[in-house]
Amino acid sequence: MKIQASQVNPTVGDIEGNARKVVQALERARKGGIDVVLFPELVLCGYPPEDLLLDHSFIDALEKKLREIAPATKGLFAAIGLPRRNPRKKEKGLCNSAAIFIDGQLVGFKDKTLLPTYDVFDERRFFEPGEQESVFEYLGWKIGVTICEDAWQHVGDVGYTDYRRDPIQDFAEKEIDLLLNLSASPYYFKRQDARLSVFEACAKTLRCPVVVCNQVGGNDQVVFDGHSLFVNEKGELIQLAKGFVEDDLIVDSSTHACPCGLPENGTRDLYSALVLGVRDYFQKQGLSQAILGLSGGVDSTLVACIAKDALGADKIKAYSLPSRFSSPNSYTDAEQLARNLGISLEKISIDETFQHMLDWITPLFQPTDLTEQNLQPRIRGTLLMSISNQSGAILLNTGNKSELAMGYMTLYGDMCGGLGVLLDVTKTQVYALARFLNRQGEVIPEAILQRVPSAELKENQTDQDTLPPYDVLDPILEDYIEEGLSPQEIAIKHGHLLPFVKDVIHKIHLAEYKRRQAAIGIRVTQKCFSKGRNVPIVQRWR
Amino acid sequence: MKIQASQVNPTVGDIEGNARKVVQALERARKGGIDVVLFPELVLCGYPPEDLLLDHSFIDALEKKLREIAPATKGLFAAIGLPRRNPRKKEKGLCNSAAIFIDGQLVGFKDKTLLPTYDVFDERRFFEPGEQESVFEYLGWKIGVTICEDAWQHVGDVGYTDYRRDPIQDFAEKEIDLLLNLSASPYYFKRQDARLSVFEACAKTLRCPVVVCNQVGGNDQVVFDGHSLFVNEKGELIQLAKGFVEDDLIVDSSTHACPCGLPENGTRDLYSALVLGVRDYFQKQGLSQAILGLSGGVDSTLVACIAKDALGADKIKAYSLPSRFSSPNSYTDAEQLARNLGISLEKISIDETFQHMLDWITPLFQPTDLTEQNLQPRIRGTLLMSISNQSGAILLNTGNKSELAMGYMTLYGDMCGGLGVLLDVTKTQVYALARFLNRQGEVIPEAILQRVPSAELKENQTDQDTLPPYDVLDPILEDYIEEGLSPQEIAIKHGHLLPFVKDVIHKIHLAEYKRRQAAIGIRVTQKCFSKGRNVPIVQRWR
Repeated sequence: MKIQASQVNPTVGDIEGNARKVVQALERARKGGIDVVLFPELVLCGYPPEDLLLDHSFIDALEKKLREIAPATKGLFAAIGLPRRNPRKKEKGLCNSAAIFIDGQLVGFKDKTLLPTYDVFDERRFFEPGEQESVFEYLGWKIGVTICEDAWQHVGDVGYTDYRRDPIQDFAEKEIDLLLNLSASPYYFKRQDARLSVFEACAKTLRCPVVVCNQVGGNDQVVFDGHSLFVNEKGELIQLAKGFVEDDLIVDSSTHACPCGLPENGTRDLYSALVLGVRDYFQKQGLSQAILGLSGGVDSTLVACIAKDALGADKIKAYSLPSRFSSPNSYTDAEQLARNLGISLEKISIDETFQHMLDWITPLFQPTDLTEQNLQPRIRGTLLMSISNQSGAILLNTGNKSELAMGYMTLYGDMCGGLGVLLDVTKTQVYALARFLNRQGEVIPEAILQRVPSAELKENQTDQDTLPPYDVLDPILEDYIEEGLSPQEIAIKHGHLLPFVKDVIHKIHLAEYKRRQAAIGIRVTQKCFSKGRNVPIVQRWR
Repeated sequence: MKIQASQVNPTVGDIEGNARKVVQALERARKGGIDVVLFPELVLCGYPPEDLLLDHSFIDALEKKLREIAPATKGLFAAIGLPRRNPRKKEKGLCNSAAIFIDGQLVGFKDKTLLPTYDVFDERRFFEPGEQESVFEYLGWKIGVTICEDAWQHVGDVGYTDYRRDPIQDFAEKEIDLLLNLSASPYYFKRQDARLSVFEACAKTLRCPVVVCNQVGGNDQVVFDGHSLFVNEKGELIQLAKGFVEDDLIVDSSTHACPCGLPENGTRDLYSALVLGVRDYFQKQGLSQAILGLSGGVDSTLVACIAKDALGADKIKAYSLPSRFSSPNSYTDAEQLARNLGISLEKISIDETFQHMLDWITPLFQPTDLTEQNLQPRIRGTLLMSISNQSGAILLNTGNKSELAMGYMTLYGDMCGGLGVLLDVTKTQVYALARFLNRQGEVIPEAILQRVPSAELKENQTDQDTLPPYDVLDPILEDYIEEGLSPQEIAIKHGHLLPFVKDVIHKIHLAEYKRRQAAIGIRVTQKCFSKGRNVPIVQRWR
């Protein structure tokens, strides 16, 4: 049996374009002598389609497109993900389904049984669960079809959910020869290990090979890494598709290949995810030009590197916008970086405008430190947005997750921008990524990595005037936001005093109102701000 | 039987404060010779608690508090809403429950059966449905307990959901003597009619009286209107609690009162909802001072009126920030309004700063119309945020829903502000509200209502240079956003050409990226932007 997992990059709502990718993959399969082809979850509409699913004409258009695709499955078994109208006594009007074609005929549907409704997932908003696990026969093989989450309960509860059913266990009685899984399983840091262990366990229980096809691409906040995979009946990883690009994983179940390990999947994958997130945000909207403020600090430096790799050096315009508080070295470092990357850099001092505004407001009131400090990023934001309005280029936000968590950012100032490239990356990870880029020679000037972090908004300021050192802060943020530990647990784990930990957590909650107006950030952890973390602004807990 | 529906205003997460309100209501009941007391849904944590529910220590604290409350129910039957750990084979770890106390003893729980997961509701994210309808006996009465949505399926499907079960039908076989409903049923324009018809239908089916206790108060975007109600066994409305304030609805089932009608509940309620939304946003955060830009246009005028009624005239500081494009009349009208309201108004010209910034950027590029126009609101935003930073007062955003829908707003300019008072109110409704305020004499200078709407960002500009007339635009927005009609249906309904309607809808989608960074708005319709409407930014449908 030859199987092709076509790991494509659909665009949400682009039914025509997505269908074209499906048909082209089916044609490749036929030419390649493939028997079975599978695609990612909801490939025809792209994942996550969100409230587009509530538009009846959207579902109509998908139904129509599915009928048009049918002939392209001639000579194949094909599993194609799309939403379909719920045919049963309903609660919700749709199912998250896989249409199963055999030789050009639609032979049935598999409806997703387990519907993730936690974190960034809200499938119960739209879908009704499937009620049974069906097996499709093809060329004498009994093929079980599952959709993403259907496999995950087999290794225990996921995302605050302990499903009542385990579809893999249901399949165990049916003695299937092959399990397919259509996934839209988002990337997060070190996610691959968890994903592999799920499908290893499934293969061992079912004693049959498992082929997983995972979506690739960025859609708003969420990035899918691909890495489709083939696990043999012993639960050994045999083949892994590429990460962060479209790829066909071609599996021949008759050959006996050796198990392979997962490649190192830490910082390199994190970088790739950010690049893909930026690229798809632009490409899928038909945009190409980006601008950013380049301060000479490590955050904007890293964003410039990512943007260059995502869009090309000629598509990036960087602006150095010093005030009286900017050190001259910041500019020379930024200049060196721009030369290294081959991107344009223009220097525009904001100082006269800063002075003008100080002179303007001083008759009204004697500006406090806070007011003075916020004024500078707001002037920069206004200038950068003027450049964006003028050119149509999108402003990239360069803030990081540690700052966003603590509210160490100015609303309508350095919080400006259409896409927050690093809003799910802690300062610690920012440095790790920067060092990763320098692994084969200096891309990022060493001085940038050595300089003490500073917003440069007043004399001799450093981030640590206001925030705990990042090597203290970031583990607390991770344990509270991602792991959901209590202040007490965090204090004990890291040997901190409880009031210190509580103060950090209090500041996280105080900044909720700022985050609600933040740019969307590329999600690269288990728990990013905004979508996936719904904490009220007005609340009195913590 | 004497029943007290204690329509309180809880604060999300304020377990102590909410419990205090519950205990005080129980004391009032005992003194008043009441038999049965009920509270709103999830009264102990406030609704909606959102992801605070995922914090184990939050659930622990609620459990502890419930035990502490028990003695206060001495001599009473009491139904108190709170989340509790799911005791059954689980999918989700919590139930949305009512704790039932009889004479100081916890006798059981009712778990909500129907869990709304659409629009602003995401109960399936946290809760597992209850599996049976239980009846509690007290003083010889059989009392059925339901929670909000449990009653709504009885009149057909709600919010894209057609539940498989109808708890009211389940109760029909049990011959109960009284139905209680604990609600957190948000206000929206003319919602009361729908709510009443649900409970009329329940009473008729069950042939027993129904008492509903609905939450009152604003929590982030969502406003609850109270209006707890008593419907007799014939399905006639007998009593209605006050709207938009805390109230005890005291029902004596032995007296035979005459049916009452619903009071007029259009514009007056809409105004009350906005006032309550503003007041609670401030009070529940311990804030009191607000600032706003007062342009002399109808939107900021209305916001000033609402803010004065919510917070008091002495808590509001208004700023008139004219540029060269502002008509002198705008200022004199704003001045008259400020006098009428008794609020402070300061005039600060932005023109010098505007000219300074034009001079600054002109060597970089010859500013386009768009760039020039966006510069002015951004300078105003920067100034107002400086005043906010300086004083701690919260900037109120004054944009309306028609503008937000069409993207006719400047990011980081007139989109600045912590709370968008009118972001769910169309321009048509803004005028209706303004005229309502003038019903007994001129509060709002007539000239403000007569002036042609203009952003005053260039010579002789009017909104209709860019937007269709509001009496054409607003019905399209309502039909597309609230009613979910297709472009074709809208074109036919209003006699428009299809390309015109499609163009409006295209603009709605193009502005999604702006809305994602908008202030939270007070929800007063069936479908507000942001929470409740999840449309991807990057998508190719429409």
